[in-house]
Amino acid sequence: MKKIYLDNNSTTQTDSRVVEAMLPYFTKYYGNPSNMHFFGRETKEAIEKAREQVARFINARPEEIVFTSSGTESDNMAIIGAYKALSNNGDHIIISDFEHSAVFYAANYLNKWHNVNISKLPLDQYGIASPDELSRAITDKTILISIMYVNNEVGTVEPIKELVQITHKSSAYFHTDAVAAAGKIPIDVRALDVDLLTISSHKIHGPKGVGALFVKSDVNINSILYGGLQEHGLRPGTENLAGIVGFGKAAELAIDDLNKGVPDQIKKLRDYLESQIVKRIPEIKIHGHPTRRVCNVLNVSVAYVEGEALLMNLDLEGIAVSSGSACSTGKSEASHVLKALGVEDKYINSPIRFSLDKNNTQEEIDHTIETLVSIVERLRNISPLWKS
Amino acid sequence: MKKIYLDNNSTTQTDSRVVEAMLPYFTKYYGNPSNMHFFGRETKEAIEKAREQVARFINARPEEIVFTSSGTESDNMAIIGAYKALSNNGDHIIISDFEHSAVFYAANYLNKWHNVNISKLPLDQYGIASPDELSRAITDKTILISIMYVNNEVGTVEPIKELVQITHKSSAYFHTDAVAAAGKIPIDVRALDVDLLTISSHKIHGPKGVGALFVKSDVNINSILYGGLQEHGLRPGTENLAGIVGFGKAAELAIDDLNKGVPDQIKKLRDYLESQIVKRIPEIKIHGHPTRRVCNVLNVSVAYVEGEALLMNLDLEGIAVSSGSACSTGKSEASHVLKALGVEDKYINSPIRFSLDKNNTQEEIDHTIETLVSIVERLRNISPLWKS
Repeated sequence: MKKIYLDNNSTTQTDSRVVEAMLPYFTKYYGNPSNMHFFGRETKEAIEKAREQVARFINARPEEIVFTSSGTESDNMAIIGAYKALSNNGDHIIISDFEHSAVFYAANYLNKWHNVNISKLPLDQYGIASPDELSRAITDKTILISIMYVNNEVGTVEPIKELVQITHKSSAYFHTDAVAAAGKIPIDVRALDVDLLTISSHKIHGPKGVGALFVKSDVNINSILYGGLQEHGLRPGTENLAGIVGFGKAAELAIDDLNKGVPDQIKKLRDYLESQIVKRIPEIKIHGHPTRRVCNVLNVSVAYVEGEALLMNLDLEGIAVSSGSACSTGKSEASHVLKALGVEDKYINSPIRFSLDKNNTQEEIDHTIETLVSIVERLRNISPLWKS
Repeated sequence: MKKIYLDNNSTTQTDSRVVEAMLPYFTKYYGNPSNMHFFGRETKEAIEKAREQVARFINARPEEIVFTSSGTESDNMAIIGAYKALSNNGDHIIISDFEHSAVFYAANYLNKWHNVNISKLPLDQYGIASPDELSRAITDKTILISIMYVNNEVGTVEPIKELVQITHKSSAYFHTDAVAAAGKIPIDVRALDVDLLTISSHKIHGPKGVGALFVKSDVNINSILYGGLQEHGLRPGTENLAGIVGFGKAAELAIDDLNKGVPDQIKKLRDYLESQIVKRIPEIKIHGHPTRRVCNVLNVSVAYVEGEALLMNLDLEGIAVSSGSACSTGKSEASHVLKALGVEDKYINSPIRFSLDKNNTQEEIDHTIETLVSIVERLRNISPLWKS
């Protein structure tokens, strides 16, 4: 059975050109980039090249890129690192009501261990944060606002530029987790005017185990790990050399794809999938914003069917989707994202997220639609709620 | 000019068999190990296999291995994570006077931000910590002792088993950074009876960007990064899949090498290098313990010659060595390790560390000796101090 992978917001296949770029950095060039000798200098150069590639991807300057081990670490560094630098200025942080767990739990840690007050900005039914609400939430104690660029579960694109404008009427920093935005929409840190921005390699066909945090030149944050002076003193530990080289190459390829209009191709397939599901399956709900949504995400709840049952049945048919965030954290409770959107009970436990990619084909999507329709019919036929 | 790499304590070349093991985990198997579907299950299995390989390498149980992004992160997790779990029990931590910067600065952070008292255990002139001194340093407020297994700069092997016995008369945990021990001496966490132990992939011919922390079954530490529930809830963020697979393979190969007596081969070469330098260059000092020293390290100071000048001249001749820890942190001050050993002024600024490996040959060592002797003669001839 041919497998169909529709879970690209969980992770993506590493591009073979990325692997090719990485390969020499295991056995041929392997020096520690911190070393002054020849072996170290040549790998230091490779890291600086990758830094330029990643900087170009988000319109930053190379010296504004800090390489980390993941989007999670970048989010943690932004939230905790900003607090540690700014703790004398205030003790209030604002996040949105549907942030990634890396932002949410980092804020939660600051609340528990450092008595930082955390406000959660409410969202409308589509997941859009309101600049007016943000304006009202900011106090003279607010040091940081963290609102994701694109929600990973439902794909809603936030009005970051407007939120930053409001933020910068105060002295607070603005951080955005752009992990689910990267590769789907162009990211321009200068146009957005953000202070801190998180991206991750493995969501744009780079290797797993590498992330980056954009730290604007005049922005002051502390490190959250302690040791050597790598990454401008912000992130100690021997660099993930081949991983960073791979991330750089993936960023370069992602720029090409954006320029070639790949997101539009993906959007056509996603829109087709969506329209067919809407047409053929009654009593469903599409989550997120109808238009302000990235090209690759379709999160849909099917009433009277459990999301996990759908996921498992699709898996048996070789189709990989995700049931929202549940699987990524190992928990089996309702998605905090759907709760934040005020999704009604009937739909809250049954989301499945399709996240497409340039590698998906029309045939795959057609097969997925037929399979989904048939599974939903079968599951509903054995559901007492559906029958009544 | 053929390059000679004698800086294996900085990092090692990734073994080609390790790279081969990693390769399928970029383009063929790429699912997120947290996902429930087929793509996730097959990569989850790969991570669990690597966990078994790494566990076997240190005689631990697989569930006692937490994968991290580096030795630095593992050290931080041990020190800060233990404090966060035990902060109600006490506020005193003991480290040795020549710990790696990841241990030292993690302890320093706890002192600055959480008022934790840090005691530094003095060492004798060879770098050996004394169990009696440790016994006197422990108070009823002591929650953690962290003493490295093998010092990375001078190679001294600490009496960990005895230090742990003393520690366990109290309720404190014992952590050891075993990064420079791994692959050079067998590591047995059960025989040592340590609670926490750090190892790093890239020091045993695995990829950079992966480390592990051994956390004994009944030992309670907190995470130091916040987000998803990966790694038994102790280390959030999507796993460095290929890196972890590579670390597992490197651990398996390291066990083979230990069984085949590779450390003895390396020791023969190192001892030859040492004896020739002692014979041919007057006024030098070998650092660390004469016999309780790992097989691959020779740290030597040459009086009246700057270590950095030696390093750069060797580099020009294609020979890569390190000047101790200075280069790894970007600082150019005297090594804190040599200071801890009470090394006299004449020798404190001139250490060079040769760290050998199974790939080094007799020819390389012979060439290194001739080159070093000639450089020292040349540099001393232009040194006014030497002439007087």
